[in-house]
Amino acid sequence: MDLEAAPRRRRGKELEAALLDAAWAELAEHGYAAFTYDGVARRAGTSRPVLYRRWPTKPDLLKATIRHYADQQSIDPRDTGSLRGDVIWLLSQMSVERAGMMTLIMTNLGGYFEETGETFADIRAHLKQGRASVMTEVVERAVARGEIDPARLTDRIVHLPFDLIRNELMMTLRPVPRKTVEEIVDTIFLPLVRP
Amino acid sequence: MDLEAAPRRRRGKELEAALLDAAWAELAEHGYAAFTYDGVARRAGTSRPVLYRRWPTKPDLLKATIRHYADQQSIDPRDTGSLRGDVIWLLSQMSVERAGMMTLIMTNLGGYFEETGETFADIRAHLKQGRASVMTEVVERAVARGEIDPARLTDRIVHLPFDLIRNELMMTLRPVPRKTVEEIVDTIFLPLVRP
Repeated sequence: MDLEAAPRRRRGKELEAALLDAAWAELAEHGYAAFTYDGVARRAGTSRPVLYRRWPTKPDLLKATIRHYADQQSIDPRDTGSLRGDVIWLLSQMSVERAGMMTLIMTNLGGYFEETGETFADIRAHLKQGRASVMTEVVERAVARGEIDPARLTDRIVHLPFDLIRNELMMTLRPVPRKTVEEIVDTIFLPLVRP
Repeated sequence: MDLEAAPRRRRGKELEAALLDAAWAELAEHGYAAFTYDGVARRAGTSRPVLYRRWPTKPDLLKATIRHYADQQSIDPRDTGSLRGDVIWLLSQMSVERAGMMTLIMTNLGGYFEETGETFADIRAHLKQGRASVMTEVVERAVARGEIDPARLTDRIVHLPFDLIRNELMMTLRPVPRKTVEEIVDTIFLPLVRP
């Protein structure tokens, strides 16, 4: 049983990834207005029930598609030796990797928000579901180095650099310039958390 | 001549306001996909050349429409006696008045961004054209009261509370709760500007 189970699960995951790759391609190519189970099934070379079984509603399918796409982008914390370096590293990755997704959301998901009453916050919640924030590791290291006063840390302050980068991305639909990333870190984030 | 000129100018402004009211109604009702010179002219009871003469391109017409709508919302600085009170007053107004506009932008302007390559930043630049930021007055009063260290003021920090409220509005498409407004002011903005 066990010998069988592992490969079968892997096939399941591979199939799921292929379905969501097809779904992302459909979404990016035709936009939400033309995003249908039919179109995704056709592109993936499968049938609609295969999709419905995994994602019973269109919002389920859409959010799984965006999460799958985001998962393939590399936004990984790195120990650069300082809080400043760690945060600039994360934000720089985000500002490049997420620009395309943010453009898709701003230009193509209006119909989805209108149709379902969902918001960008719902998409973000789905992306974060069941995983630790990448900032947790960075913040813990900085506390250990004595670079952060833990008493000053709130959820809002920890996520502040991301909120500001997201705001830039949503406003400009372009990767955020390095200078802006540094300004956010040096003049806003670090002064708020330093002991 | 002078006696004639004043009423004629007023008529011109009244006409312009009526045209832009009609344009906003079209946009809010049918979305950008159905936003046309034809539809606006029909609703305003005028002809397309009357519109083209004032706003030669669709982006001109769209941005004038949004600016006209924003102008009718009351976001006015008030002297409450303290920087904290002044900023909370401004943000609270913004968080209520701008929620509808932000929803329209997030749900209905995707096609516009895609078609023209413009962004939300272009719309904001148009809204700000030729007018002082409402924060200028608030900040000047606070400097005079000794509540702000002018050496700490940068453009980014002055506009930080607005960037964060806009981020909340774009994420949630709902008026920002009072508690969130206070948290932004008390834990982020004030600590960054206080002497």
